[in-house]
Amino acid sequence: MSEASQEGAPSKAHDVAPALSELKTPCALVDAEIVERNTSRMAETASRLGVALRPHLKTHKCIEVGRLQVRGHFGGVTVSTLAEARFFADHGFRDITWAFPLPPGQLDEVFGLADRVDQFQVLLDHEVTRARVEEETARRGRPLSVLLKVDCGYHRAGVDPRDPESLALAQRIVATPGIDFRGVLTHAGHSYDARTPDEIRIVSRQERDEVVAFARRLRQAGIEVPTVSLGSTPTLCVPAEHLEGVTEVRPGNYAFFDLFQVAVGACRREDVAFSVLATVVGHYPEQRKLLINAGALALSKDLGASHVFPDGGFGRVVSVDGGTEYPDWKITSLSQEHGQVIVPKADALSAFPVGSPLRILPNHSCLTAALFDVYHVVRGNEIIDAWRPIRCW
Amino acid sequence: MSEASQEGAPSKAHDVAPALSELKTPCALVDAEIVERNTSRMAETASRLGVALRPHLKTHKCIEVGRLQVRGHFGGVTVSTLAEARFFADHGFRDITWAFPLPPGQLDEVFGLADRVDQFQVLLDHEVTRARVEEETARRGRPLSVLLKVDCGYHRAGVDPRDPESLALAQRIVATPGIDFRGVLTHAGHSYDARTPDEIRIVSRQERDEVVAFARRLRQAGIEVPTVSLGSTPTLCVPAEHLEGVTEVRPGNYAFFDLFQVAVGACRREDVAFSVLATVVGHYPEQRKLLINAGALALSKDLGASHVFPDGGFGRVVSVDGGTEYPDWKITSLSQEHGQVIVPKADALSAFPVGSPLRILPNHSCLTAALFDVYHVVRGNEIIDAWRPIRCW
Repeated sequence: MSEASQEGAPSKAHDVAPALSELKTPCALVDAEIVERNTSRMAETASRLGVALRPHLKTHKCIEVGRLQVRGHFGGVTVSTLAEARFFADHGFRDITWAFPLPPGQLDEVFGLADRVDQFQVLLDHEVTRARVEEETARRGRPLSVLLKVDCGYHRAGVDPRDPESLALAQRIVATPGIDFRGVLTHAGHSYDARTPDEIRIVSRQERDEVVAFARRLRQAGIEVPTVSLGSTPTLCVPAEHLEGVTEVRPGNYAFFDLFQVAVGACRREDVAFSVLATVVGHYPEQRKLLINAGALALSKDLGASHVFPDGGFGRVVSVDGGTEYPDWKITSLSQEHGQVIVPKADALSAFPVGSPLRILPNHSCLTAALFDVYHVVRGNEIIDAWRPIRCW
Repeated sequence: MSEASQEGAPSKAHDVAPALSELKTPCALVDAEIVERNTSRMAETASRLGVALRPHLKTHKCIEVGRLQVRGHFGGVTVSTLAEARFFADHGFRDITWAFPLPPGQLDEVFGLADRVDQFQVLLDHEVTRARVEEETARRGRPLSVLLKVDCGYHRAGVDPRDPESLALAQRIVATPGIDFRGVLTHAGHSYDARTPDEIRIVSRQERDEVVAFARRLRQAGIEVPTVSLGSTPTLCVPAEHLEGVTEVRPGNYAFFDLFQVAVGACRREDVAFSVLATVVGHYPEQRKLLINAGALALSKDLGASHVFPDGGFGRVVSVDGGTEYPDWKITSLSQEHGQVIVPKADALSAFPVGSPLRILPNHSCLTAALFDVYHVVRGNEIIDAWRPIRCW
């Protein structure tokens, strides 16, 4: 248990740039260059496919990344919570889709937001919600922009596009005086079940085919469908050969990416822009173990792509400069503030003396980023900014 | 997919008290009566066992629960982060133990805290950290209060009490001019591996025996050991028959409890004081599924006592008044903001129309509570207060 042999300063190879070394750990790092590259690349993809990009902001929830995502685009965005909607509306975002099934009791806030921006769109897929919207729009004498959520195979939410009742619901929505029907929207979350890019592409085609076919069905019934929206990060990173019939896409995670996206083949390891800086607080050589000050409240307990790597642990250790990976080191256990990292051989511990910093790439950046009040923005090894996300609801 | 048959107001049985119905969901609820009962009961346990109670504050991180935990006691507390330490010091807590292995680079903040309270104790279990404390206390001409962390069988951190090197480290600590050696501390986190109260009690005895034996060994070597500290919620809820030789205990989760503690037999279901209020946003009868607006960012992805209930899901649904449980309803999947609840029969969905509130008891209240900015404090079905936790580091 003695660390006598490992006393002294961290070895040269793991020295931290002066700025990074001043950060208190655990903390969140965002690599500005990678975010810029990721957002530019998605912009090119959308442009090449001839669709509008309405990026999802839920992964980072911060203004600065949102601005990079809409750079050169029409400016519309997607959010997962009303807190995100208010925050981005406060900072000049004027066209927002809340991509979550509308809870009928939250119409007050929805109308408040609709007042403040040029367009605020909500989702519904239930008659009971449509009826509430009808009542409330009538009572207030104000319209609401609505998209019909379609299930393209993920089976989390949305109407079954093959069910005649789905067409009937669309007809009732269109016939509702207070509703401005904007179109149809789907999300192929089952792209996360893929194991390879080829498997993603099958889902990408399905996502397109299902929503486009449903839009066609509505049009055949005389319904105007201005928007045909789809998107997940995997299905836009490995897109279908064409997106004919689709008007917009809504990927989000691609701004940061994470190990899940790497595992399914949606990106490369070097595309992961978000990491957690932690400090080694213990060596337990008889257990071949490093103890770090990043636990469940710094990394989240998301198991990541466990269908690809059943025993992958809670993230991946990289050197503080991001240049060296330790793929055979495994974060086996997270308690609230402790992370336990098992290494193949006890002598590997000497690379990270007690007190040394290291970085962890997260399994799921959406959940990990949400645990931090601030992102330290890094260019190379220099800290150039601090970005502050919104949280809660 | 149509909800026509379920339109209209929630059924009478699930009406919300006026105050609860005004809460935006998802949100955190804390039952004041249960917290008072839980904290009183632990106070009685400590008193009966003749040990000081130094409660851990990490589960709730809010001043009000901390005050309930120290009511009638000497006032010392335990924290897991420096952010907690600063927050509680700001609010009158004067005796704080930071129960986390000291990261050598955080001594500036530690000395800052030591200046502001009567006693601020840190933990160490490594020679390299002791040496850094020696340097820093000498350089600053100021002492630091230190506890030696002992591994009683959990194997997360701490020195092996049977290793002669552990005694040698204690001797070096005691001989360090700047260190005020306060004693030994252990945490039987492996009590969470138990499946029954009887299994917990075996760990409770081990926790006591290991730390008391190590204290004896130090005393035999001429070292004064004022503090012999142990504690986890399970080992204090199902304690050893006596705690002779122990001076203080540090449970924390017991203020809120959670489904994990219920599963291992540390408490009853009705002792769980923390829950998440959510709203039903969708019915998918063909999947026997409710969709709720509480996902991974409202519940955490902690799997709970999966060694007892391998397939227990991400929490348990109860009625909004807390009175009715749905033990055979299962929260099978959490995405960022969506929770999917599978019910045994589709007609069970009618108990919770779209728009209805329900409560979720969390698997692990420490991780779930940390996701909220405010706890709405409930007495019966009335909201009586709002408590605000500190977060991050």
